[in-house]
Amino acid sequence: MTDFLLTHAQTIVAEALAHGRKSGFQPLAVAVLDARGALKAFAAEDGTSLKRGEIARGKAFGALAMGLGSRALHRMAGERPHFVEALHGVVEGPLVPVPGGVLIRDASGRLLGAVGISGDTSDNDEAAALAGIAAVKLTADPGQ
Amino acid sequence: MTDFLLTHAQTIVAEALAHGRKSGFQPLAVAVLDARGALKAFAAEDGTSLKRGEIARGKAFGALAMGLGSRALHRMAGERPHFVEALHGVVEGPLVPVPGGVLIRDASGRLLGAVGISGDTSDNDEAAALAGIAAVKLTADPGQ
Amino acid sequence: MTDFLLTHAQTIVAEALAHGRKSGFQPLAVAVLDARGALKAFAAEDGTSLKRGEIARGKAFGALAMGLGSRALHRMAGERPHFVEALHGVVEGPLVPVPGGVLIRDASGRLLGAVGISGDTSDNDEAAALAGIAAVKLTADPGQ
Amino acid sequence: MTDFLLTHAQTIVAEALAHGRKSGFQPLAVAVLDARGALKAFAAEDGTSLKRGEIARGKAFGALAMGLGSRALHRMAGERPHFVEALHGVVEGPLVPVPGGVLIRDASGRLLGAVGISGDTSDNDEAAALAGIAAVKLTADPGQ
Repeated sequence: MTDFLLTHAQTIVAEALAHGRKSGFQPLAVAVLDARGALKAFAAEDGTSLKRGEIARGKAFGALAMGLGSRALHRMAGERPHFVEALHGVVEGPLVPVPGGVLIRDASGRLLGAVGISGDTSDNDEAAALAGIAAVKLTADPGQ
Repeated sequence: MTDFLLTHAQTIVAEALAHGRKSGFQPLAVAVLDARGALKAFAAEDGTSLKRGEIARGKAFGALAMGLGSRALHRMAGERPHFVEALHGVVEGPLVPVPGGVLIRDASGRLLGAVGISGDTSDNDEAAALAGIAAVKLTADPGQ
Repeated sequence: MTDFLLTHAQTIVAEALAHGRKSGFQPLAVAVLDARGALKAFAAEDGTSLKRGEIARGKAFGALAMGLGSRALHRMAGERPHFVEALHGVVEGPLVPVPGGVLIRDASGRLLGAVGISGDTSDNDEAAALAGIAAVKLTADPGQ
Repeated sequence: MTDFLLTHAQTIVAEALAHGRKSGFQPLAVAVLDARGALKAFAAEDGTSLKRGEIARGKAFGALAMGLGSRALHRMAGERPHFVEALHGVVEGPLVPVPGGVLIRDASGRLLGAVGISGDTSDNDEAAALAGIAAVKLTADPGQ
């Protein structure tokens, strides 16, 4: 069993931001939550819009709320919009059903937390999240 | 760098209302927010409906929240409705994704605030916002 | 019967700010609501804190909610704190029970709206409100 | 004028945590907000309780909302409890009126943001915030 430590979360933030910078992405906000949904580490690049960080957190929180990477929530929102709409009143927290909210698991599949990123396209946000999780050698689950 | 002063905000309100009157628009509510999303100046013409001012504020606040003029949010609401629906629970403030919420920038592109107008058609609301911003020689970004 | 017009509200804002400036007050936020509780005119001096305008609005809205100038609400909060605490969950809007929220009446006593001011001491906030209302020759009721 | 950059915010977080560790404090949550009230950097030490981070954010956000270090809000809560209670419904965000929410200013006095810390005693939380702000050579205003 792997403890999910602040150092892991901070490395994910740093590597996700580094991925965005070297890829020429728009300024990113990166939120890393632990398995309880509590914020563990966060950074917003200079120039992010007023609520960009809340969107990042909503991608990660929504993923944890449902146990599904937010790409899966995005697909569900297309297939069953009334279900995803209902979730907003249910989850007692933000839920943003677009790609970029990625579950973090250890090698045994145990859920450790989630990272949510917003700022560029959803696909690019997700790519930055995957880069961050790869840097700590944990398993990323972006949803399908 | 340009400081965004109360006198700028009050001139935007006055000129937007003047534009609406001379164009024969319905009564307008005009909200000018600074870059923090804090209301700086506001006026509601005589005869505006009970929550018209909240709609005006929601156009401006939504634009600042996302860093996009509300015309762009209107387009996104058509293309990705589940994303814009989710934002309502995320932005910790009002967000009205129709034209009429216009970002205000200085000559260097720095974001100073936003104006939101509601009362007539969305296109006319936006035109009044543009007239107000032009009067203080700042740059308007209504979104695309 | 007197109609309460935007020009009245704008004059109240301008004169209240002028009173604060010539008196050397801290930067003021001034909110004028009509009898429905809808915002009619507003200005925040340069340098007001992030939520100062919400406090100003809460003084005025609370006064309208109860039909009492906010100085009376302040007294009630001392005498019956549980009652004023309960109001926060009841009035469906902000209520700030300190002086500076002043009802506006016409010569016949008919309620036209309220002005709320925040930024300096409560007594000074109220004095600026009284100055604004005097300038339009309407009757101020600050509560007792 | 000093821009308040992510590197400043991240250094404040790192130095505040380092201060807490070397002082033997309980695990701290540290939130740094910019002048808009938007989260810029955050970290929660391993072992912080479920909502500790929200308390940290509430100390910083409350300070920005009122333009006063949270030690001043703590004093106000003792002197005028009904006023501080009312603020909870007004500020459209969290407000925690105990020491540990410290305003950050540049050398000219311009407000750049705030840091909020929670985890140990309020006095120790505040001391960690001061250590963080000192490390970036900015001016701390904890309130009085």
